[in-house]
Amino acid sequence: MKGIFIALEGPDGSGKSTIMKLLNDYFTERNIDVIVTREPGGTEIGEEIRRIILDNRYDNMLPETEALLYAASRGQHVHEKILPALNEGKIVICERFILSSLAYQGVGRNLGIKEVKMINDFAIKGIRPDLTLFFSVDPEITLKRKIYIKGGDRLEREGYEFHNKVYEGYMKLLKMNPANVKIIDATKSIEEVFKQSIYYIENILKTKEAEI
Amino acid sequence: MKGIFIALEGPDGSGKSTIMKLLNDYFTERNIDVIVTREPGGTEIGEEIRRIILDNRYDNMLPETEALLYAASRGQHVHEKILPALNEGKIVICERFILSSLAYQGVGRNLGIKEVKMINDFAIKGIRPDLTLFFSVDPEITLKRKIYIKGGDRLEREGYEFHNKVYEGYMKLLKMNPANVKIIDATKSIEEVFKQSIYYIENILKTKEAEI
Repeated sequence: MKGIFIALEGPDGSGKSTIMKLLNDYFTERNIDVIVTREPGGTEIGEEIRRIILDNRYDNMLPETEALLYAASRGQHVHEKILPALNEGKIVICERFILSSLAYQGVGRNLGIKEVKMINDFAIKGIRPDLTLFFSVDPEITLKRKIYIKGGDRLEREGYEFHNKVYEGYMKLLKMNPANVKIIDATKSIEEVFKQSIYYIENILKTKEAEI
Repeated sequence: MKGIFIALEGPDGSGKSTIMKLLNDYFTERNIDVIVTREPGGTEIGEEIRRIILDNRYDNMLPETEALLYAASRGQHVHEKILPALNEGKIVICERFILSSLAYQGVGRNLGIKEVKMINDFAIKGIRPDLTLFFSVDPEITLKRKIYIKGGDRLEREGYEFHNKVYEGYMKLLKMNPANVKIIDATKSIEEVFKQSIYYIENILKTKEAEI
């Protein structure tokens, strides 16, 4: 693969979407081919799956069903959109990827990290980001904002207890030293977080060039 | 579980739906509690997933995505509808179950029987039918009818080669001696097939009563 695959991870309301837009502008202005995308979703089939997953009516959705739907969306996303873009040499920036499933479904929903990894491996084999930026911020700070302002989708609406468990899940996963993850303090200003993100991405770009 | 879980399996056009309706009438007339259901689907979430799986526009759906969507629908179906009905002592008759996924996605889509079983075990653990009736008929006979008359959904529209491979998959699975499967010659008349089905179901009902 000639391109660079970057995932943005972190709790709801940690600034992933904002930073993704800024990164898109940054690379576009420099005439560097970039696409931004998100999970669940990112393809037509994936967006249909997203609609089911996040629908507030489905509060009786089985955790296993939720995890399988995320994996189904991810498989389609990787093969239809991410891999082709990488093969064209593009930078692909994706809001949420496998780490989200391990934290939300593996830990938050008690399905087990190993089990959720297994169904994701079925979907995407060994495909992993070249760089994951983890926006670190306690969910107590961010959650209220997102729910009270926007109403919140089915997962955002889960209470503080769930989101705190997800955050602890992220912490547990980070301690397992996953490859290519950089942690950014997302309580800082947007400018600071953006600057830090660019720093890590530029480093990866240099490494990748050096490899060629 | 107090009830009886019966799955109807076989190629497209082998008469599963017709027999299911006749069985429903048969037990209803005898004041025996029965529900009939189908896969993919069977629940509100499952029917939404079904719509995505069978949509003819999605001819670029990744086989892995297809398999994960079936498993997602099945997990929801078992926990929301099948297990509660069984716990109320009902007869549950389901058109297609795990054997379909092993034949269609495991063999037909080349994903592997073991791999597809694994994601289904994630969804439904060890839940299996008390009785599976397999309606045996060469797809060459049935396929033309269904496609030419009705237009066919995304899976039905797959060519003869695919459906023949699925049939060979079923044959392979039957040779592995799966528990509680009875094979019925579906080239016989509807009356004969129905009579044979009732024979096997009554046998199971007797065994179940004897256990109590």
